[in-house]
Amino acid sequence: MTDERYYHVDGEVVPATEATVSVDDRGFRYGDGAFETMRAYGGTILEWDAHAARLERTCEALSLAHGVSLDDLRERIDETLAANDLTDAYVRLSITRGVQPGKLTPRPEVDPTVVIVVRPLPRGGLEGSPVWDGPATVRSVEIRRIPDEAIPSAAKTHNYLNGILARIELAASGSAGDASDADEALMFDLEGGVAEGATSNLFFVDDGRLHTPSIDGPVLPGITRETVLELAEAADVPTEEGRYELDDVLEADEAFLTNRTWELRPVAAIDGRSIGGGPITDRLSRLYDEYVETTCYRR
Amino acid sequence: MTDERYYHVDGEVVPATEATVSVDDRGFRYGDGAFETMRAYGGTILEWDAHAARLERTCEALSLAHGVSLDDLRERIDETLAANDLTDAYVRLSITRGVQPGKLTPRPEVDPTVVIVVRPLPRGGLEGSPVWDGPATVRSVEIRRIPDEAIPSAAKTHNYLNGILARIELAASGSAGDASDADEALMFDLEGGVAEGATSNLFFVDDGRLHTPSIDGPVLPGITRETVLELAEAADVPTEEGRYELDDVLEADEAFLTNRTWELRPVAAIDGRSIGGGPITDRLSRLYDEYVETTCYRR
Repeated sequence: MTDERYYHVDGEVVPATEATVSVDDRGFRYGDGAFETMRAYGGTILEWDAHAARLERTCEALSLAHGVSLDDLRERIDETLAANDLTDAYVRLSITRGVQPGKLTPRPEVDPTVVIVVRPLPRGGLEGSPVWDGPATVRSVEIRRIPDEAIPSAAKTHNYLNGILARIELAASGSAGDASDADEALMFDLEGGVAEGATSNLFFVDDGRLHTPSIDGPVLPGITRETVLELAEAADVPTEEGRYELDDVLEADEAFLTNRTWELRPVAAIDGRSIGGGPITDRLSRLYDEYVETTCYRR
Repeated sequence: MTDERYYHVDGEVVPATEATVSVDDRGFRYGDGAFETMRAYGGTILEWDAHAARLERTCEALSLAHGVSLDDLRERIDETLAANDLTDAYVRLSITRGVQPGKLTPRPEVDPTVVIVVRPLPRGGLEGSPVWDGPATVRSVEIRRIPDEAIPSAAKTHNYLNGILARIELAASGSAGDASDADEALMFDLEGGVAEGATSNLFFVDDGRLHTPSIDGPVLPGITRETVLELAEAADVPTEEGRYELDDVLEADEAFLTNRTWELRPVAAIDGRSIGGGPITDRLSRLYDEYVETTCYRR
């Protein structure tokens, strides 16, 4: 037994240290690829259908007809988890346009590169523990979200510099200022409306109502975001997807971030203003854990 | 003797078929890298200093302190050309942030991945021939250039989906419409001002004056663009960098595109309106060829 990890590249399980792609792969040259970040709980991919559907939407936005069936993709994920002897895991699936002649305009015939990367995560669900250390410290950044007119925000692609620049700005502002290092950058659209974090969607609670920026703006349609909205509606928590200013969030009673890995993560403060979680955040977190427990561990 | 080509990866000359990067490389995961496209003429990289300076500006914009000296980079390029027995060539140099732990926020300590890709091109200069078949057919696209507020347009990075989406739109409009396949997509800023092509800068001539969109807009500061402006000024051709509408270009007397590989390429038509090259395009092309001849072949 060794600690060696295994990835899945182009149809084969390979040691992570040997998992490579050609430098001519368009995924490397241009970030010309789609990806999904998933969680396996007890060996089951939470909401695989939703990930598969979003992956297909991303590929449609990129005109990337990869030709790999969803069953095949799912099987590769299962093989990768098995090779690593993992049941609770982070799973990242990428499909790039592969190697094509050195022209920017893609060819319609694609020999895609499919890559699956996994790493262990703690158990989730009712007996689980969060992956984060504590509530998130959030700070606004100047870098704006890319508008839909330039790249559709619904597409989850290997072009991730916009979020990286936001995190770089966040880290730079932390070392210069008085606050301790922040966990997440709060990004705005070009008109100054609240959009999302660099890797998370934002929710806030005001007067008992749950708010989150609408995906009409430059906001990734997060699958955890959608699940939280559905859980809230099922629990008769009023919800609203809208357009918000920073002040709306700063004056909120509760706030939390969502993404697949974090699940629901309370926000300690934004721009130094304390907000914190609260009863609705706690309730939705509990409902989310129950949902994971029943759909993955007890299915 | 074989036709095998060689690339340069991480300090080593390797056969192109074995030139790979880790799937954990941030260049692959996120397109988190800088690049330059250069031309070698007679073994000399045209305007290496300008490429080196722009590469450093891109890396600064990405806070990518790669730690590789410019002399070292230059030496790797020369090694790659020598391994391929090439003197007239396309040269693409990439520096990515390399492999880091799986977090979006970059670490300041970087073990960069340096990749050099070359392929043969025809001779340039006074006895040379262009790489393109004929004047370019150009069409406007709806996809807008990413604004500087989201990603600085002066940064030349592996996040190239914006241009790819423009080319995909161009190809789709060609098969649906009556025009033959177009060569380049004309892209606009969010306010509808003319920006640039997906891989080229645009120039046009009106009443004897040479115009090109200002780099105050979302326009890559092309090195060929800058050289053409300098050659025009030295030849007493009046120049203007400004903000233009599509109609300004459609009514022009001449138009051409520039990039490192194409050099100057006349525009046959934009959106079906014939424009073509002309005396100033021809004169600047000749001056460019002379410049390449004297700085590279006869140095």
